Amino acid sequence: MSHPFSVARRVEFCETDAAGIAHFSAFVCYMEQAEHALLRHLGTSVTRDLGDGWHLSWPRVHVECDYRGSARFEDCLTIQVAVERLGDRSVTYAFDFTRDGQSLASGKLVAVCCKVRPGQPLESMAIPAELRSSLQKYLV
Amino acid sequence: MSHPFSVARRVEFCETDAAGIAHFSAFVCYMEQAEHALLRHLGTSVTRDLGDGWHLSWPRVHVECDYRGSARFEDCLTIQVAVERLGDRSVTYAFDFTRDGQSLASGKLVAVCCKVRPGQPLESMAIPAELRSSLQKYLV
Amino acid sequence: MSHPFSVARRVEFCETDAAGIAHFSAFVCYMEQAEHALLRHLGTSVTRDLGDGWHLSWPRVHVECDYRGSARFEDCLTIQVAVERLGDRSVTYAFDFTRDGQSLASGKLVAVCCKVRPGQPLESMAIPAELRSSLQKYLV
Amino acid sequence: MSHPFSVARRVEFCETDAAGIAHFSAFVCYMEQAEHALLRHLGTSVTRDLGDGWHLSWPRVHVECDYRGSARFEDCLTIQVAVERLGDRSVTYAFDFTRDGQSLASGKLVAVCCKVRPGQPLESMAIPAELRSSLQKYLV
Repeated sequence: MSHPFSVARRVEFCETDAAGIAHFSAFVCYMEQAEHALLRHLGTSVTRDLGDGWHLSWPRVHVECDYRGSARFEDCLTIQVAVERLGDRSVTYAFDFTRDGQSLASGKLVAVCCKVRPGQPLESMAIPAELRSSLQKYLV
Repeated sequence: MSHPFSVARRVEFCETDAAGIAHFSAFVCYMEQAEHALLRHLGTSVTRDLGDGWHLSWPRVHVECDYRGSARFEDCLTIQVAVERLGDRSVTYAFDFTRDGQSLASGKLVAVCCKVRPGQPLESMAIPAELRSSLQKYLV
Repeated sequence: MSHPFSVARRVEFCETDAAGIAHFSAFVCYMEQAEHALLRHLGTSVTRDLGDGWHLSWPRVHVECDYRGSARFEDCLTIQVAVERLGDRSVTYAFDFTRDGQSLASGKLVAVCCKVRPGQPLESMAIPAELRSSLQKYLV
Repeated sequence: MSHPFSVARRVEFCETDAAGIAHFSAFVCYMEQAEHALLRHLGTSVTRDLGDGWHLSWPRVHVECDYRGSARFEDCLTIQVAVERLGDRSVTYAFDFTRDGQSLASGKLVAVCCKVRPGQPLESMAIPAELRSSLQKYLV
């Protein structure tokens, strides 16, 4: 990966559960937030106007996460994002969660490039060329 | 109130926090869920098609909640909903949370009747007559 | 599976996102809620007092979900829960999400049977015999 | 207020709802996150070890929020925090939400200083002197 990308994320109190740790579903949201941060870093957004009432969107078709440790309120997590697979119409993102260098979890998210218009069915489409070449730099 | 309305709601694990209790923001969502259950009970929904691309919606302009006790995972809460004030274009709902008869919290939610169309500013509108007369039965 | 188990779950408004559908992370919480409902159905809970300050808990080590459709506000989902694998110290649950018979998503959750005491590290333990035999009836 | 305190908060996608805006309950969590950021800024935390198995905690007894506008995905909100009232055993925080100088919402949170020990009832206590004097600087 020529350009590793990572974001810092503090565990908020509302994300913890009665076991005293960040609820496991919080990591799923953290992954999405890291994906969105990467797209902003690339000068775009996960949702984007395509004109004529259409916009680009990235519905998720798969998510997974493996947990090796737990995170607590106010822990500062580092989330590293890479592109594991860059298809014609889909991206597989891979995420690594660490705290002070200790690996806590890793996950994957598969999103499909689609055009959407209110009241119409989703239509998958080829990833726009300039975004494709931006994402390629994060391919592992 | 001629027709008291109440819903039961079990505290889910993902709604608890590291203090071992339902996070205080969960009660805000419970209030909204009870409001939506009341509207379904009245044969309608908080969002409704008005034709011509418009739909009815109820943006919130105020919420408040007073907490007197805490709720834990798997507690079964009873949420009673009443209409405290029925304006021309807004409703103030009042909520009471109990568990086994013990009062845990009470709250209020003020929602404004609006027509919405994608890409256009919200427009407040008079509450439709038949809904108004349905809600009147819950006025305290 | 001698005893199929399923729960109904209505999509709440706070679980939807700006794409107009239930946020994909909501399915992760729905899975956990269905697991907890199964355990209640078996007369127990995902967290249980073991005496001497210890309690039984089920930390999650893996979750995954495949999405084939989307769910909207007020949709009523049916979530079927099965036990895919019953290890000595862990359970793999499998979940199927349908709406009116249409398959929307399927997922898995792996939880490890642990004893926990505040201030002490988690300790995995063998699944208690009577719970083991209850879960066996849901093994596919 | 000698020391105004503010935090920036980007609206995350999982916080939006099917109306296309940040769900109103998200502002309740944003308030709490701003309170916790202020306490970290003061060198402490909303939860703190007091020794002997006790810790300091701040259960919420009241929250309210008035909404004047809506926030969308990726909007950057500025949340200003002030202390509106500093009681012997409680703090009333006041919050203002703006986006590019436009006021979107304002809210209040009342938290009570308590000592907590697992398995024992909460006990309210006087706010520790040094924290009290730190908070005083944010009194409006």
